[in-house]
Amino acid sequence: MVGIRDIAKEANVSISTVSYALNGSARVSEGTRERILAIANEMNYIPNLAGQNLRRQKTDIIAVYLASYQGTFYGELLEGMHQKAVELGLELIVCSGKRSRLFLPQRLIDGILVLDVTYEKEELLKYADLGYPIVVLDRQLTHEHIRSVLLDNKAGSKKAVQSLVDEGIDKLYIISGPVLNHDSSERAEAAVEVAKASNIECEIIEGDFTEASGYSAGEKMDLEQDLKYGIFALNDEMALGIHNYMIEKAYHVGKDILIRGFDKNQVTEYLVPPVKSVSYSKHKWGAMAVESLQKMIKKEEVENKIVATRFEN
Amino acid sequence: MVGIRDIAKEANVSISTVSYALNGSARVSEGTRERILAIANEMNYIPNLAGQNLRRQKTDIIAVYLASYQGTFYGELLEGMHQKAVELGLELIVCSGKRSRLFLPQRLIDGILVLDVTYEKEELLKYADLGYPIVVLDRQLTHEHIRSVLLDNKAGSKKAVQSLVDEGIDKLYIISGPVLNHDSSERAEAAVEVAKASNIECEIIEGDFTEASGYSAGEKMDLEQDLKYGIFALNDEMALGIHNYMIEKAYHVGKDILIRGFDKNQVTEYLVPPVKSVSYSKHKWGAMAVESLQKMIKKEEVENKIVATRFEN
Repeated sequence: MVGIRDIAKEANVSISTVSYALNGSARVSEGTRERILAIANEMNYIPNLAGQNLRRQKTDIIAVYLASYQGTFYGELLEGMHQKAVELGLELIVCSGKRSRLFLPQRLIDGILVLDVTYEKEELLKYADLGYPIVVLDRQLTHEHIRSVLLDNKAGSKKAVQSLVDEGIDKLYIISGPVLNHDSSERAEAAVEVAKASNIECEIIEGDFTEASGYSAGEKMDLEQDLKYGIFALNDEMALGIHNYMIEKAYHVGKDILIRGFDKNQVTEYLVPPVKSVSYSKHKWGAMAVESLQKMIKKEEVENKIVATRFEN
Repeated sequence: MVGIRDIAKEANVSISTVSYALNGSARVSEGTRERILAIANEMNYIPNLAGQNLRRQKTDIIAVYLASYQGTFYGELLEGMHQKAVELGLELIVCSGKRSRLFLPQRLIDGILVLDVTYEKEELLKYADLGYPIVVLDRQLTHEHIRSVLLDNKAGSKKAVQSLVDEGIDKLYIISGPVLNHDSSERAEAAVEVAKASNIECEIIEGDFTEASGYSAGEKMDLEQDLKYGIFALNDEMALGIHNYMIEKAYHVGKDILIRGFDKNQVTEYLVPPVKSVSYSKHKWGAMAVESLQKMIKKEEVENKIVATRFEN
């Protein structure tokens, strides 16, 4: 690869002159800079990111780690992160997998956002111990260099289940996400709490946050005539699945079967009847996480943050 | 940062012994390897990605460049890429911005996928000239090291517009995407062709692929009573926008106003009446692109590919 040494030779100037020219330093005249840039371009010179890092210690690139891109959920979240990053002069990359985790200790990125249950706690703590700034969106983790930006899962879930209780349901079904998922655990816990407080029978059916798992949860429900059932699907993909199941099986959705979801995906408002869902701004969640990370990179004080959720009956 | 030199010193062995141990070479005994790994771990040693590249010449990481994450469109496409990458032993990262483009000439990634109108042709050709494998999803570009995987926009668009013509529309409105967008141009061109062949008046209203731009396109339409209009929105976000506009303004959607979209997003099938949309598998599109890129990385022959589109009336 062409280096600044080669450009210096070709331009017949010193290496430091080339360096000044490429870095926009005022120590070289505009004419010299233009001549050197033209030569660098002609020689297909590509600036060395790592080299620049050593000088600046920062790349102004941050990364978010995800386990999957499935569902409509991530688009808004990533766009919220992306827009805030651009606003703050940062660049966002999205990673999923283990090799790209090395970008952090390689100093190719300045900090990371984590929404990836497969990213082990031990590895995160190791990087935090080395002083790299980390923002987690999927777990609670206490460390000097780790901050969390988490959803207020409990408040929204309680309101959603209370709205079912208020409708006089005889039994509550909860369709959960993956067992180890932080959001799913918090939502389920809050739902069970509300059902217990009202002496309503409650059963959890395990799903995996996909529409298909919401649909097949329907097959596991034991529904008696003349009883009224509340179903709290812990995300909207699954709410859509169970809605479609109940419509197909000709249950009276909205009357004998009342469904609540979480995330307020676009499609839920177009269903007949609409599925009521706990909402929050995914865009804002992403933006808040990037904002926290940027402050940590700048060595400013940052608190853990909670993202508000709402439920409108 | 801790290097293998430090580990060698601490373990009282040669640098090459450490290197063999870390790389799993059979030249060191299992006992030695375990001892060295324990020391490396204790010292917080992090393997150098760039150093490994120099030996292997490959990182098995590929990147896709996007301009935005907005909309439901990208989730499926990225999941298709991600799953295929994992299947092929590759890791996918998603980038948006200019600094991360340097990952390619820095050899941090083995090749790139491009669906980003802001990625200039000149920069792509420069990297292609240097021999880096590139797959484009958003343009036609001929180069030894560039292959395309593009949608068959024309076939789907023609069928969608023909279905409107067959319904006896008096005028066709096309709501386009951004002017420079490859998919939008191809779809619009095919639509105009069909309208002309049937002597149907045709007007293009510029949108930007967002729901809001579809909605506001409605305000620019000059709709007379007793006439029948066909609207071809060049993606489904805009189809949803114009559908909502027409419903709000109490037009007879499905009778006087017939809407067709492109992409077959989940929500279109739940609309009343449903919006008919040109469909294709975003998942497959992503998977095909990754497959082509992997072959190029392995120096195998690859043709340009076309992804089939369908329209069911």
